[in-house]
Amino acid sequence: SSATETIRATLFPGDGIGPEIAESVKQVFKTAEVPIEWEEHYVGDQVDPRTQSFLTWESLESVRRNRVGLKGPMATPIGKGHRSLNLTLRKELNLYANVRPCYSLPGYKTRYDDVNLITIRENTEGEYSGLEHQVVRGVVESLKIITRQASLRVAEYAFHYAKTHGRERVSAIHKANIMQKTDGLFLKCCREVAEKYPEITYEEVVIDNCCMMLVKNPALFDVLVMPNLYGDIISDLCAGLIGGLGLTPSCNIGEGGIALAEAVHGSAPDIAGKNMANPTALLLSSVSMLRHLNLHDKADRIQDAILNTIAEGKYRTADLGGTSTTTDFTKAICDHI
Amino acid sequence: SSATETIRATLFPGDGIGPEIAESVKQVFKTAEVPIEWEEHYVGDQVDPRTQSFLTWESLESVRRNRVGLKGPMATPIGKGHRSLNLTLRKELNLYANVRPCYSLPGYKTRYDDVNLITIRENTEGEYSGLEHQVVRGVVESLKIITRQASLRVAEYAFHYAKTHGRERVSAIHKANIMQKTDGLFLKCCREVAEKYPEITYEEVVIDNCCMMLVKNPALFDVLVMPNLYGDIISDLCAGLIGGLGLTPSCNIGEGGIALAEAVHGSAPDIAGKNMANPTALLLSSVSMLRHLNLHDKADRIQDAILNTIAEGKYRTADLGGTSTTTDFTKAICDHI
Ligand SMILES: CC(C)[C@H](C(=O)O)[C@@H](O)C(=O)O
Ligand SMILES: CC(C)[C@H](C(=O)O)[C@@H](O)C(=O)O
Repeated sequence: SSATETIRATLFPGDGIGPEIAESVKQVFKTAEVPIEWEEHYVGDQVDPRTQSFLTWESLESVRRNRVGLKGPMATPIGKGHRSLNLTLRKELNLYANVRPCYSLPGYKTRYDDVNLITIRENTEGEYSGLEHQVVRGVVESLKIITRQASLRVAEYAFHYAKTHGRERVSAIHKANIMQKTDGLFLKCCREVAEKYPEITYEEVVIDNCCMMLVKNPALFDVLVMPNLYGDIISDLCAGLIGGLGLTPSCNIGEGGIALAEAVHGSAPDIAGKNMANPTALLLSSVSMLRHLNLHDKADRIQDAILNTIAEGKYRTADLGGTSTTTDFTKAICDHI
Repeated sequence: SSATETIRATLFPGDGIGPEIAESVKQVFKTAEVPIEWEEHYVGDQVDPRTQSFLTWESLESVRRNRVGLKGPMATPIGKGHRSLNLTLRKELNLYANVRPCYSLPGYKTRYDDVNLITIRENTEGEYSGLEHQVVRGVVESLKIITRQASLRVAEYAFHYAKTHGRERVSAIHKANIMQKTDGLFLKCCREVAEKYPEITYEEVVIDNCCMMLVKNPALFDVLVMPNLYGDIISDLCAGLIGGLGLTPSCNIGEGGIALAEAVHGSAPDIAGKNMANPTALLLSSVSMLRHLNLHDKADRIQDAILNTIAEGKYRTADLGGTSTTTDFTKAICDHI
């Protein structure tokens, strides 16, 4: 099986705390004997004209070739004449679905202990079209674009995900009572795909009501699929329920089976280089990457080690109220493997 | 003072449970000797060509004349050739700001006990422009419109509200990192107004981050001001924090000093006429209306009676886990006055 061959994967350690938490993943993978060889790429220090951003063309080629990668936080440098790093990756690699498993971590107390859901966000269009202009002085407009192709693609991914991960329900989140044409098309596509999955319950929830239900009773939800901006909002809301972006894995799915897992938190320049960063989000994202590669044994072992370390509560980084260093926390995880 | 003259106010009892909860307000106002005479208007049973909706022209004229009103839930009849009742009211009366005080109710337990914020939503433009079309087959677009005029107007309302209500901070909620022109204009207007209120702290929070912070620690927020859709989402999220739309007051502010307070929950046709409805949202909305009229003594007495009745917990309607009827709950409030 492929589990015994070496798999090449692209690694973007990223900026700020990125290199430290990437180091944590490398050590955990070594300890768990994950058959992955990393191809490391850093954000460049000048704009690459082929990507119109600080991302090098070579780094994108690396992901295209390997079809799988892991990405730490990247802070887009301020200034004109180049594109956001995250948006460039999404566009250039056609990362059409952002998938975030979100579950309460045993032993890490928040106001919620019953979260267990997956947010699946359309990642390429909608409110992120970049099409905006001034109509007359004092009147500006932005275009939200919804296409049948992208909506079907993300809906198909969501239902397939639900089916293959033992999930029972898919909720399409929308505001079609107001945006009848755009969100209406999104829903129409979801309904078409739902017909092909009679074993999965399908429902439609208006975004305002969805947010209210999520804060009242997140256990009501299973898999959520959404246009871009609603996904941006709801996936962060859900991360908040379980403790924040420092704890939530994320994986971007692209055309042709590309998977780029990423920690979606910031690069925390204030604590960079201080051995204080929490590597959990990047570690759990690396688990998502392993699952995408069907390396479920390794994924289970690493995920259990992370969750057990957090549950025990002996080693916790400062953001979780503890005093552990990144290296001590990582060592504790390795000891659990 | 105006407190001794009789003030005429428009009352839309609305559909479903609307008439029952409106009756509750009428009784409470009578008990508290509020000097208000109601002008009652019901949603019509046919489309009025002058409003293009089931709202009668006379009912809109009534609000325009009285400048103040209270509205129960209205369910827009299904079908073509007419406009949504709520959207018609907002457009025709130019209700540019939706204001929702949102605070934890003593004695009614949710996961949060420290909510005390105000959401102020731009209510006339943004994603609610109604401008949408199909570009080619399978590609649709919606226009989000932001104007300098409407943004300044709602920002001015928010800062004035903060100043006159002893609030310290205004947070403008946006996604200007993606919608640089539309949300960028909204922020620019907020900044301009902020300059005139040096005693109020001003901050800008990206909507995804705002939702995460709200579920982690709502006490971080004071007054929030937002474009239309973000306001729709965040005001419902905040309602969820304290128990739901059945408990949250809402007031719409229009040009020329119009105030139309409303219960924003649904018309609950399943329990209509059964003396089971919870009148709290409409009662607290009527308190907002009284405050708008500067009838603060009456407002305080009624608000205290409502909150004390809920805090005691002896009389609670079914939605709050109790068995009280609407009339018993209302009587308990009247007894507190
Ligand atoms: C940084 C920002 C452009 C980005 C987004 O809005 O998509 C972020 O919020 C995310 O979710 O990855
Ligand atoms: C019913 C719907 C059109 C409305 C809105 O989106 O404004 C509702 O959610 C509200 O908040 O009053």
